[in-house]
Amino acid sequence: MKYKIKEINVDAGEFTIILNSADAKELGVRSLDRVKVIAGEHTITCIVETSDSVVSQGEIGILCKAFEKLKACDGGDVDVIPTSRPHSVELIKKKIEGHVLTSDEIREIITDITKHNLTDIELTAYVVACQLNGMNLDETTALTRSMVETGDTIELDKSPVFDFHSIGGAPGNKITLLVVPIVAAAGLYIPKTSSRAISSACGTADIFETIARVSLEIDEIKHITEEIGGVIAWGGHVNFAPADDLIIRVEYPLSIDPYSQLIASVMAKKKAVGADYFLLDIPTGPGTKVEDYELAHKYANDFIEIGRRLDMKVECAITYGGQPLGRHIGPKLEAQEAMQILEGKITRSSVIEKAVSMAGILFEMSGMINGKQKAREILENGQALAKMRQILKAQDGDPNLKSEDIKPGEFKAVITANQDGYVTFLDNKKLVRLARTAGSPRDHGAGLVFLKKRGDHIEKDQPMFEIHGDNERKVLEAAALSNRLKPYTVEGMIIEHIPSTTRPVEYED
Amino acid sequence: MKYKIKEINVDAGEFTIILNSADAKELGVRSLDRVKVIAGEHTITCIVETSDSVVSQGEIGILCKAFEKLKACDGGDVDVIPTSRPHSVELIKKKIEGHVLTSDEIREIITDITKHNLTDIELTAYVVACQLNGMNLDETTALTRSMVETGDTIELDKSPVFDFHSIGGAPGNKITLLVVPIVAAAGLYIPKTSSRAISSACGTADIFETIARVSLEIDEIKHITEEIGGVIAWGGHVNFAPADDLIIRVEYPLSIDPYSQLIASVMAKKKAVGADYFLLDIPTGPGTKVEDYELAHKYANDFIEIGRRLDMKVECAITYGGQPLGRHIGPKLEAQEAMQILEGKITRSSVIEKAVSMAGILFEMSGMINGKQKAREILENGQALAKMRQILKAQDGDPNLKSEDIKPGEFKAVITANQDGYVTFLDNKKLVRLARTAGSPRDHGAGLVFLKKRGDHIEKDQPMFEIHGDNERKVLEAAALSNRLKPYTVEGMIIEHIPSTTRPVEYED
Repeated sequence: MKYKIKEINVDAGEFTIILNSADAKELGVRSLDRVKVIAGEHTITCIVETSDSVVSQGEIGILCKAFEKLKACDGGDVDVIPTSRPHSVELIKKKIEGHVLTSDEIREIITDITKHNLTDIELTAYVVACQLNGMNLDETTALTRSMVETGDTIELDKSPVFDFHSIGGAPGNKITLLVVPIVAAAGLYIPKTSSRAISSACGTADIFETIARVSLEIDEIKHITEEIGGVIAWGGHVNFAPADDLIIRVEYPLSIDPYSQLIASVMAKKKAVGADYFLLDIPTGPGTKVEDYELAHKYANDFIEIGRRLDMKVECAITYGGQPLGRHIGPKLEAQEAMQILEGKITRSSVIEKAVSMAGILFEMSGMINGKQKAREILENGQALAKMRQILKAQDGDPNLKSEDIKPGEFKAVITANQDGYVTFLDNKKLVRLARTAGSPRDHGAGLVFLKKRGDHIEKDQPMFEIHGDNERKVLEAAALSNRLKPYTVEGMIIEHIPSTTRPVEYED
Repeated sequence: MKYKIKEINVDAGEFTIILNSADAKELGVRSLDRVKVIAGEHTITCIVETSDSVVSQGEIGILCKAFEKLKACDGGDVDVIPTSRPHSVELIKKKIEGHVLTSDEIREIITDITKHNLTDIELTAYVVACQLNGMNLDETTALTRSMVETGDTIELDKSPVFDFHSIGGAPGNKITLLVVPIVAAAGLYIPKTSSRAISSACGTADIFETIARVSLEIDEIKHITEEIGGVIAWGGHVNFAPADDLIIRVEYPLSIDPYSQLIASVMAKKKAVGADYFLLDIPTGPGTKVEDYELAHKYANDFIEIGRRLDMKVECAITYGGQPLGRHIGPKLEAQEAMQILEGKITRSSVIEKAVSMAGILFEMSGMINGKQKAREILENGQALAKMRQILKAQDGDPNLKSEDIKPGEFKAVITANQDGYVTFLDNKKLVRLARTAGSPRDHGAGLVFLKKRGDHIEKDQPMFEIHGDNERKVLEAAALSNRLKPYTVEGMIIEHIPSTTRPVEYED
């Protein structure tokens, strides 16, 4: 029997359809069961919800995502065939039970995720099981390959292709907006795709979209890179490793990110753009994703090994991320700070030191010598700004943009010091919570501005940092949370004792 | 601003509302954010979905569950206030990270679950984290108490109160339909509430609802027990430990059941009916939930200890569950077999042995001697059948019901032996999968009927068991699955060697 389509414009996470309860009974299906819906040549598997009133007998309510995918039309008709739970649910259970999955099993799960065959419950179970039971390197390699295979890829007409990525955890890490123009200005090719925030305050895509279009098509990424050397695109818009964004959707509300997923997510996207040389930035220090050196080395070794298996030359930089990078956190605020640096209005910053170091390593991977010095020259002589203007133009931004054109949120709360002394600690995790409470990354104007950083002297009731936002309620909520969390330490008598170690130099701001 | 209510009759798992995208933007909320919805004196926290077409600006779409809870009316109006993610999401993350939760933290999570404050994603994360990281006895005690406190309770005017429970895992375990009438016929009080299947083929509530009303109100459970001694009710209808059913909703599609949740689920419901004496049945053997003796002893010790902390006298019976109990699996089929036993049409069965043993232990906990003998007398002299007729009458069933009145599903597939020999193994887990594929427990007529059991001789192509169902497609699917899974072993030459152990006697059928 045919069912008449009724479009239901609700954005559900899965492909969901609504059947009249009587029809569902007739078909022998219940709420949360699965059916195949066939519209002409398009067939998708959907999750069933039942209703007595939304649809009449003989009607099928089709929610947005399924509607789009089916290329259905309101009033048209479809066939509905009951089908069983996909086998990958059994495989997810196998992972919950602590078993190692084969490459084929992992491919099956990732394929089902990509086809929207899993419910939120099943997908969350997969993610939490991976978080807790982990995956070995074989599984992680298979996961990476499956994620590449289930998505699109780019093949540039130019080579070699360079790329880099910072593992999250260092708030304020807007270096992509510096590294890409520096590297491209030197004549190398860097088709950089970035993600939005999962558990961080904001991702590079969140930042750059405040000043340019980041939702680029694959062809645009290819052509812009071939023409001007670099691009800064949102990876989620193109269909690279599409499983990743579906997985992130359930990771996000839980703020978790399993190790295997973290590696595969990064490596699959680098593989998808055809990267030959890839530099990974691993920020360490309190409050970063990778707090200690030993773990950072494990990350480095695993990324390098997975790279080897995927035929990609990987190097890693362990960097200091124990306090926010630079002075701004939040989408517009970080775009502004990056522009200020490119414009030469800021000349001394941890952001600059990190960006030129990273670009320098990429230069040396390409065979150049004195990479860091070369990178600094390109930044200081204005070539990086000129390249950024080309990128802005190519991505429909304003090529004449000035940092002062970027306006952070209109609401502001000022957090002051609770005593005289020196700032001895800024708590990354708490600051990220504040920025998110203020609305970042969804509210573009939301974020934090630091007036003082570690080592600075401050007096009681002097401004320590500002909370900005687009929504007054959220800014007030963040300010209240700040009073509760106390995300900084000011110590009056003794400044923190810093033993002599081999840690990288810690810049003043 | 007030929003006009539009009822959306979709059964979502959480309290969900739909806002027009423009209104959502105005309020500063996005899809999956939370808002408080205020209708007169009723306030609930809901999850936001956004839409451009389902609701116009100024309208709010309210889904079934939220609509009911708000006692809203179509066309009425409500206030909407954005609110932040509940703190218990942080606590769930703490459990994912492997920490021990305090009693207060557990109460907070359970309270939020009970209030429908958590999304499917968050609830699944909680369940999978408990499955993998476990809870200690302090946490489990707090979990039990929280589950009792967030629900209703019964106080009988009679005492002492007896109760029992079988941990799932032994398919065909319909003993409740025998134990309750036997115990009540002896003059004891047993207000038995049972659950529906989580990962098993069917639960007692699924079975008994095929011949009586199991959705009883608290007052009915109280009065029926006080008047005739026993009742068989569905625990999910009354508001005992309501968190449990919400948790089961996400456990069900994953077929998982964390240890701490298993204990708390059972104990909270026994505490809620005011049980003074509680007997726990722990089936062991291949394919049961508790496969080995050592683990069964851990279960027993933990239940007894939690009972002690809750002021309840607990005893445990470790029973043999290595193959299905009796010959029928499935809601109607199990009701039929139980009636056949009560009617005296079956006189020799593992079901009878187990039921009279369990009733016997309860009798001895009450101070009687020769409990098992007494139980067998009550079954054989017709007192148990008479009591069952009283229970059926009290629960709106047919007091004159005969076993032959119960009709299993009209579709049937016969599975035959692949060779001559003896049945040496019936695989519980695979058989459960078959029964579920055939439609059990949702389709009442679905299930399995064993013509041969362990130790029986069978010839090639002779019927081994039947698959029944209400839906032809599902029966065929189960038959195909049976061919793939091979849920039994027939061995021609050597019958399994069974070493001399202290295991309970294994009955023939």
